Amino acid sequence: MINIAVLGYGVVGSGVVEIIKKNSVSIAKKAYQEICVKKILDIRDFPDNPDRDLFTKDPDEIFNDPTIGIVVETIGGIGAAYQFTKEALSRGKSVVTSNKELVATHGPELLKLAKDNGVNYLFEASVGGGIPIIRPLNRCLAANEIYSIIGILNGTTNYILTQMKKQGKDFEEALKEAQSKGYAEADPTADIEGHDACRKIAILSSIAYNEFVDYRKIYTEGITKISLVDMKYAESMDSTVKLIALSEKIEDGIVARVTPAIVSNKNPLHNVEDVFNSIVVKGDAIGEAMFYGPGAGKLPTASAVVADVIEIVKHWGTSSNYDWGVKEGNNVIDFGETKSRYFVRLKVEDELEARKAVENTFGNVEWVKACDISVEDEVAFVTACGFEKDHCNALELLKENKAVKQVANIIRILD
Amino acid sequence: MINIAVLGYGVVGSGVVEIIKKNSVSIAKKAYQEICVKKILDIRDFPDNPDRDLFTKDPDEIFNDPTIGIVVETIGGIGAAYQFTKEALSRGKSVVTSNKELVATHGPELLKLAKDNGVNYLFEASVGGGIPIIRPLNRCLAANEIYSIIGILNGTTNYILTQMKKQGKDFEEALKEAQSKGYAEADPTADIEGHDACRKIAILSSIAYNEFVDYRKIYTEGITKISLVDMKYAESMDSTVKLIALSEKIEDGIVARVTPAIVSNKNPLHNVEDVFNSIVVKGDAIGEAMFYGPGAGKLPTASAVVADVIEIVKHWGTSSNYDWGVKEGNNVIDFGETKSRYFVRLKVEDELEARKAVENTFGNVEWVKACDISVEDEVAFVTACGFEKDHCNALELLKENKAVKQVANIIRILD
Repeated sequence: MINIAVLGYGVVGSGVVEIIKKNSVSIAKKAYQEICVKKILDIRDFPDNPDRDLFTKDPDEIFNDPTIGIVVETIGGIGAAYQFTKEALSRGKSVVTSNKELVATHGPELLKLAKDNGVNYLFEASVGGGIPIIRPLNRCLAANEIYSIIGILNGTTNYILTQMKKQGKDFEEALKEAQSKGYAEADPTADIEGHDACRKIAILSSIAYNEFVDYRKIYTEGITKISLVDMKYAESMDSTVKLIALSEKIEDGIVARVTPAIVSNKNPLHNVEDVFNSIVVKGDAIGEAMFYGPGAGKLPTASAVVADVIEIVKHWGTSSNYDWGVKEGNNVIDFGETKSRYFVRLKVEDELEARKAVENTFGNVEWVKACDISVEDEVAFVTACGFEKDHCNALELLKENKAVKQVANIIRILD
Repeated sequence: MINIAVLGYGVVGSGVVEIIKKNSVSIAKKAYQEICVKKILDIRDFPDNPDRDLFTKDPDEIFNDPTIGIVVETIGGIGAAYQFTKEALSRGKSVVTSNKELVATHGPELLKLAKDNGVNYLFEASVGGGIPIIRPLNRCLAANEIYSIIGILNGTTNYILTQMKKQGKDFEEALKEAQSKGYAEADPTADIEGHDACRKIAILSSIAYNEFVDYRKIYTEGITKISLVDMKYAESMDSTVKLIALSEKIEDGIVARVTPAIVSNKNPLHNVEDVFNSIVVKGDAIGEAMFYGPGAGKLPTASAVVADVIEIVKHWGTSSNYDWGVKEGNNVIDFGETKSRYFVRLKVEDELEARKAVENTFGNVEWVKACDISVEDEVAFVTACGFEKDHCNALELLKENKAVKQVANIIRILD
């Protein structure tokens, strides 16, 4: 029997305890041993909880207990979680977590600490909730040189965008509904500004390309500027707007970004709706594979945590951590030097002059109309593929033109 | 360095050699050791092959070589492949295969032999080509009680059905095209009659439910009877026809079948086209997860084989095989005792009388028309959900009715 401790009895932590109790027989069969929750650390009291005897407020009760072999960290954030993870690994306990912020920030250090102590630091649940993605990337696609990852990695924003598209709700309204349903937090910043998706694509990229990708180097733009009018333009292009996180390994380094993007209905990500996540991986041997499932939620996420625990128990005594080489300098290519196509909406004083100005700066563009609605004093177009820096310069030039009042929005096209 | 031998230098076997050479550096990094192809067994001569020195026609050169630790079996079938696999395992060599026929037929015996000899028998490539599915089912979803698997598991038939739907080709024409493109074999029986999908769902079910599911007990029906007229009816129901393999764990046992099915456009499998495969797995914690990718092909399948080889090398010296308990008696529920909704087309003498007769035998049904075309002397309907045996009896009764000429087709609905 292997004893584990759970740090943080929130949504995911309580889910871990629930699954380990509920599926104990089949879990023991798969892990070749029984797994038992011996301690739960939380600063709160749970007097009516059937497991109340397991709770403690003193982390040393866990760290000093030699019979506890695995620590599940479901506290979140990079404060206590960071300290406790270091402590546990240093004491020779494996750590399993769903904490994407901590992995994205201190992954290399914690992986090294795990390796040095002959234990494991696993984090399948940090990306894609219950969707198996980290282990498949690392193990099942191990024979591939992976060169691209494209995903919808945040359920909250995908729910909001789905509501906007399907129910015609505007951003604020859809956000409020997401909050009332528990899909968005009271402070939704990390989700709607793209920070959550950014950390996740950084983790996936680090695993896929076998080198640490620092999330702070990834250009990140949220969905707060997306309007119903944008949705109507996307519709006219047989597309929809999604928050897309992507990375690509090219000769000079790694291209990575998190932005809203116009996704064609020919792309399998087009149909990923509500709180679901989906990740498309491209490799030299497999071509393309896609993984789809619930990107968050108590039991899905907890089931990914427990799968990591089972993996450690099954291979008890062995240490097999991801190897994230930290490269000198910046391996993420400067955003200005990356390429994409832009969808641009301009508010105009003079439509004809504005169109001329657009073609003078961007060359040949594809003019677009919104579906079903007429938008006044506006022209919209899709540019050719070009460097971010050149697109930005071109937009600055356009803004100076008298025929143009303002740039209403720009959204990248997912090609 | 670990030496391996490849038995059978066909499409997959040559792909394995190619990937191991091409991605040798990254593979060595992931496996913690270099992997080297030492011998290739094939009865044919390859005088111009750059690896010609590795070829042998004598299997004993491989079995008697103590420096060869892993044997890749890509011969196929259950003749020589079976003998060679037993021999290799008995000699303490791990075996990796893409041979679904052998795994579905002799899996329990070979897994036991591997366990008894402290080696591994792995077969990720036997289902879904390059799509990671077997390891995710067993490992990543290990915390779940899995209760259902539904998939498009055969690329050949999916290509044929896609051509029928999109290009309006009839079955024979679409089959010929699949053959000319190399997607279907000269003798396409195993694909078009559903046998290939049947073996695959048997393997997935055995892993998911942790007990051997014998493919010979699974009701299997191919796509040879599917016509363009059926496609037009499906279209009118906002659906399409797919070859669906499914299994479900219920209290009394396992429900399993391979049949053409009408799949609604709300189902994620609806959009899986051409030679792609997709598998939807349902579990008590995760809810639903979907895996999608190329279901066949040289490099995708070979990449799954090589991933298994890497897994063995990484955990060298340990044995970790699937545990397929073989239950006494039949764990697959008798097909007559399983339930579904039927789509039925009847050729009729007298439409009004036929409709009356249908409602007398099936009760309330939903009448359907074909999209865009008019089909003469025919009525079509969808039944309520009922037992297979009752539906069959009802159809027999209808056939006896003078108003009914014949049953033109029945297709199950995927619910």
